[in-house]
Amino acid sequence: MTKNLVHILEVGARDGLQNEPGVVSTPDKIALINRAVAAGIRRLEVASFVHPGRVPQMADAEAVVAGLPEHEGVSYIGLVLNKKGALRALATRVHELGCVVVATDSFGQKNQGQTIVEGIAAARDILRLAHDHGRRAQVTIAASFGCPFEGEVPAERVLDIAEQLAEAGPIEIALADTIGVGVPAQVHDLFGQLRERLPDMPLRAHFHNTRNTGIANAMAAIEEGVVTLDASLGGIGGCPFAPKATGNIATEDLLYLLDRSGLVSGVDLDQVIASAHWLADMLGRPVPGLVSKAGGFPKPIRAE
Amino acid sequence: MTKNLVHILEVGARDGLQNEPGVVSTPDKIALINRAVAAGIRRLEVASFVHPGRVPQMADAEAVVAGLPEHEGVSYIGLVLNKKGALRALATRVHELGCVVVATDSFGQKNQGQTIVEGIAAARDILRLAHDHGRRAQVTIAASFGCPFEGEVPAERVLDIAEQLAEAGPIEIALADTIGVGVPAQVHDLFGQLRERLPDMPLRAHFHNTRNTGIANAMAAIEEGVVTLDASLGGIGGCPFAPKATGNIATEDLLYLLDRSGLVSGVDLDQVIASAHWLADMLGRPVPGLVSKAGGFPKPIRAE
Repeated sequence: MTKNLVHILEVGARDGLQNEPGVVSTPDKIALINRAVAAGIRRLEVASFVHPGRVPQMADAEAVVAGLPEHEGVSYIGLVLNKKGALRALATRVHELGCVVVATDSFGQKNQGQTIVEGIAAARDILRLAHDHGRRAQVTIAASFGCPFEGEVPAERVLDIAEQLAEAGPIEIALADTIGVGVPAQVHDLFGQLRERLPDMPLRAHFHNTRNTGIANAMAAIEEGVVTLDASLGGIGGCPFAPKATGNIATEDLLYLLDRSGLVSGVDLDQVIASAHWLADMLGRPVPGLVSKAGGFPKPIRAE
Repeated sequence: MTKNLVHILEVGARDGLQNEPGVVSTPDKIALINRAVAAGIRRLEVASFVHPGRVPQMADAEAVVAGLPEHEGVSYIGLVLNKKGALRALATRVHELGCVVVATDSFGQKNQGQTIVEGIAAARDILRLAHDHGRRAQVTIAASFGCPFEGEVPAERVLDIAEQLAEAGPIEIALADTIGVGVPAQVHDLFGQLRERLPDMPLRAHFHNTRNTGIANAMAAIEEGVVTLDASLGGIGGCPFAPKATGNIATEDLLYLLDRSGLVSGVDLDQVIASAHWLADMLGRPVPGLVSKAGGFPKPIRAE
């Protein structure tokens, strides 16, 4: 086991592209995923199995998965919000199912037509279905750090949801700052308490950089023992049902932080930067991440 | 004394505007400064007394200072790089002089025509002159976290420069990440060591968000006992003599972090956001800061 190991979970093909104004083609989605794998990423959200009427950008979920090559040690994740989505995902080759419980009723109903109680029940169904089919499954608690409609979200409620979900046997629980309002103090508090409540549960964090706190929050999460961080190439993303939510933390920005902090991810910065440039070209606009523009740490310029 | 007090030093009128492609008018500079003061900021870099041939954006330094109203408790700072600049600044009403020593010879020569040794000597001259004129003066060590030409900068060298400067009696020593390469681990290391070497010296930090680590670094600096942080409205700025250096951390982004972390600055976020919008209009382009676009923490939307 390598010490100081931090895993990056690439969500660009799902959380990133589902918020694009246009629909990205299936081959371009597959190319994005293949590039992330080539750079060293080992877990990727590749599609969302939601109703194509609600999220047309994800209508080709089955085709994306069908087009992905198998690699030893690489897990493709399908996001699902209910039993119907889970059955669709389980009919594909995805290695892992991810599901989402929103920590407030109002946002949960807007995002996926579920109150908290309904979200927990749906997640339990999904986890059971995945286990019945011999697949791994994990769960994310969305809006854990704040809600676009209700404002503050009580930490006690997030922890209570996490404890209820833990009983259903996910491989991991993630807390998501879906609208990018969190700060490091809150990250320390929430993940610190979660680790006390569920000391054996692997933890993941999902941050958006909406208010420029995403990288600071990532560092705080790592300090609290979080071993996996979500990020998207270029920092693309947002949430179609959350006003003003902007991109995930950029994979290349997170990787720069890890590399310069002596944390090992197994991912190659130069390749990720090249892929962020490719992505900006593909989308026809600059991406929000900064390291793809600034470059890595400067190499010494030698005098003659 | 309020506990958890953190001061914001507004550098937008100097570090921000000196990198604008066009020259901003004197009244617009004064308006920017007045807006920051109205929002609650108490220390501001208002001009740089450098050769107008080298930095034409700062050619109106004297006129800017002459146009500023006096406020109880508000300090206007003039940046100077040598004796000639100090004499110009001392002929104005600025309350405080700031000077800069660059931590590498190659960048120091490009930035201000001084090696490290020459920079230290110039800073001592400036501090002495300021004291002779009954004005406060402080010093910033630029490129403390990395150099665009030499790459890594040894911590030992930065600490040694700081100790030499401390003998000349500045009111404060700042470490600057001029090209935005630092990460929190490095901030903890460098400021932690500096505090051990100079336990009674007030410390300030100057971060650029070039690689998206600026806010994370600000938080790390606060944890190391740094009491003052530089920031610029809208996150404008850069360095004309450092390739690819981009903006300072945005005042509004830093303030959002402080407010949500229970840290008190006495600055009003709504006013700062309004000023960032004003600044974007004045410059005719979006500013890099994010909180002016996303807004503060969401207020609950009440059902009827």
